[in-house]
Amino acid sequence: MARIVQKFGGTSVGDIARIRNVAKRVKAEIDQGNEVAVVVSAMSGVTNQLVAYCNEMAPLHDAREYDAIVATGEQVTSGLLAIALQEMGISARSWAGWQIPIITDDAHGKARIAEIKGDAIIASMKQGHVAVVAGFQGLGPDGRVSTLGRGGSDTTAVALAAAVKADRCDIYTDVDGVYTTDPRIVKTARKLNKITYEEMLESASLGAKVLQTRSVEMAMKHRVRVQVLSSFTDENAPPASALPGTLVCDEEEIVEKELVSGIAYSRDEAKVTLTGVSDRPGIAAGVFGPLSEANINVDMIVQNTSHDGTTDITFTCSRTELDRALKVLKDVKVECKEIATDKSVVKVSVIGVGMRSHAGVAQTMFKALADKGINIHVISTSEIKVSVLIGEEYTELALRALHTAYGLDAA
Amino acid sequence: MARIVQKFGGTSVGDIARIRNVAKRVKAEIDQGNEVAVVVSAMSGVTNQLVAYCNEMAPLHDAREYDAIVATGEQVTSGLLAIALQEMGISARSWAGWQIPIITDDAHGKARIAEIKGDAIIASMKQGHVAVVAGFQGLGPDGRVSTLGRGGSDTTAVALAAAVKADRCDIYTDVDGVYTTDPRIVKTARKLNKITYEEMLESASLGAKVLQTRSVEMAMKHRVRVQVLSSFTDENAPPASALPGTLVCDEEEIVEKELVSGIAYSRDEAKVTLTGVSDRPGIAAGVFGPLSEANINVDMIVQNTSHDGTTDITFTCSRTELDRALKVLKDVKVECKEIATDKSVVKVSVIGVGMRSHAGVAQTMFKALADKGINIHVISTSEIKVSVLIGEEYTELALRALHTAYGLDAA
Repeated sequence: MARIVQKFGGTSVGDIARIRNVAKRVKAEIDQGNEVAVVVSAMSGVTNQLVAYCNEMAPLHDAREYDAIVATGEQVTSGLLAIALQEMGISARSWAGWQIPIITDDAHGKARIAEIKGDAIIASMKQGHVAVVAGFQGLGPDGRVSTLGRGGSDTTAVALAAAVKADRCDIYTDVDGVYTTDPRIVKTARKLNKITYEEMLESASLGAKVLQTRSVEMAMKHRVRVQVLSSFTDENAPPASALPGTLVCDEEEIVEKELVSGIAYSRDEAKVTLTGVSDRPGIAAGVFGPLSEANINVDMIVQNTSHDGTTDITFTCSRTELDRALKVLKDVKVECKEIATDKSVVKVSVIGVGMRSHAGVAQTMFKALADKGINIHVISTSEIKVSVLIGEEYTELALRALHTAYGLDAA
Repeated sequence: MARIVQKFGGTSVGDIARIRNVAKRVKAEIDQGNEVAVVVSAMSGVTNQLVAYCNEMAPLHDAREYDAIVATGEQVTSGLLAIALQEMGISARSWAGWQIPIITDDAHGKARIAEIKGDAIIASMKQGHVAVVAGFQGLGPDGRVSTLGRGGSDTTAVALAAAVKADRCDIYTDVDGVYTTDPRIVKTARKLNKITYEEMLESASLGAKVLQTRSVEMAMKHRVRVQVLSSFTDENAPPASALPGTLVCDEEEIVEKELVSGIAYSRDEAKVTLTGVSDRPGIAAGVFGPLSEANINVDMIVQNTSHDGTTDITFTCSRTELDRALKVLKDVKVECKEIATDKSVVKVSVIGVGMRSHAGVAQTMFKALADKGINIHVISTSEIKVSVLIGEEYTELALRALHTAYGLDAA
């Protein structure tokens, strides 16, 4: 017997028939003798409607009221799934965030989970009841409903799995696992059986849309084994043990580590270059301090060697924040000759815990790109990844070349 | 300064524009220097949609899950009204039933309010915040959301008014007050300025759809002054003090009591006559015991004098329950010659606390009906009302004749 937390997103619970299908997947785990808690999102479209009501009433509205309104979507789904399970003869009950409780901080609209008190749910599960939990929500320190921000249901599921000491957290999604790279672009992409938390975290924050970054952080912190599975593969709703998903787990659980586990890319990048910046102490702080204060997330930063007392500074930010970034730089009157921008760039990253102990990973990347005549604008590295900024038109070419260069192509 | 509880139903909060209009009415009371709590229903149509989901998932479903699902409708409205008020510069916050808390019994789906803890809401109102309360819901002894059954928002408002010691509870509805009789039938019907709890209770349970019976019982028990007002009369949203509604209050607050305050009628009546019933002790119990066990509400009962050792028993019940009542009588094999039914009947009642001290009220009724050639099938009386069952085709004729006979016609 194992204790499993399952999570189903908005598309999987989009209507009554789909909720019934989710109930079948819960039943498959019950039939294996497992204890189950299920975390659900709102039925697809419901959250958007509720958010639209708030915006129509007042574009700038009280985040506490927004939370009270928007959190109802998940409450409806959890009740409906409990009814569907009961209809199949499975004992079940719904739990709203405040009932468990899932205690969050007071950052309404984008709250972080502070603590989940697992006692009541564990007791209920031990009595044989499936716990159907409304995702995305909690109880703030002010005694009011809070929400975790979009995608928060993944985080609810992982945090709940930690709180009830679950053996596994199964995230059902619209992909059937984590791939070595985007299979829509690289036909030879392979699904990974296992990936480490660290690699998944880099992959999540680098634009792979499989899991929310925060949920992976949570899983890594609490060592929750997370399995990514497709909710659409089989109408017979087999148990997770029969589905070929990807397990996100501790490095030690992976026997055959690959040097590089995947190639990620992100198109949401814009490059800003400040030329002729006077090269004196404090100049970087003068540029990036105001950007940080304006809550603009700066990613890659490069500063060239100075000559003639001036230097060039290049950084990247999200495309949607580019205009705001330029306004900030103008407002603080950054001393430079020129500010150039480029929105036709893409960030490509190779990720792998194996590169910690192997030299030459970056060199393989640079050579593979050079062989295809692809110019690198900016480079940044971390312990387990190397990222480069290249022209957007080279995205497909670069992904395929790197996938082959690191020996990731399917046989 | 007064403390006011306002209640708005589903039509009054049917869309964003109407919720804004409700906010104006709240503001009108605030501008008078009053402290305000507002109770709201779900946006019209929302509750029906949620109930439909439950029924589609399983016709017989767990009432606790039904409650968790259906109660979300009022939670959305309360949040939206709080936002609308804030947008007008009025401090406000929403309250779900569990937050106050409104404590109910465990009869999920049709719970009764056991207690409202008013402390938190009073403290919030004293700090200058309008309390926007989700109607129709509470917290059961099992820690789960309960609902009060349809129309429960009236009861929430009255109970809340009692808990916060409000000076008045204003129920905004689709009629502009309580009339001496149905103005659609009797053109000379007058709106009453005041009516006693006792009269309103008889009137409510006799088919006048203005207030829910349970809310009037609650008001009478706690001596809450309830004002019935139209939510549609004026786009300028004047304060309640400028609106000509009807106040439901203690008898002592009404200086000029009328002998009869109103003529009510109910078409939802069916008559059942058992002829040739053997007249021996226990026969009535043999008929009405099984009906009561089957939860069939029997209203008027008449047993004629016995002759030849047999008697006739006549009773009335709701038309929708007639078939079930007949089945019960058949199943228990009631000993009688024949069972006759009549669905073409209407119950007409004259109501007035004044009749306690005045003889001849019933006689005036019988004479007025006889003068019009209307035959009376069954008669029943209570301290403050006289009801007769007559042929349905005489409804309008009887109402007009009685309205005139008791001097109720508008000048």
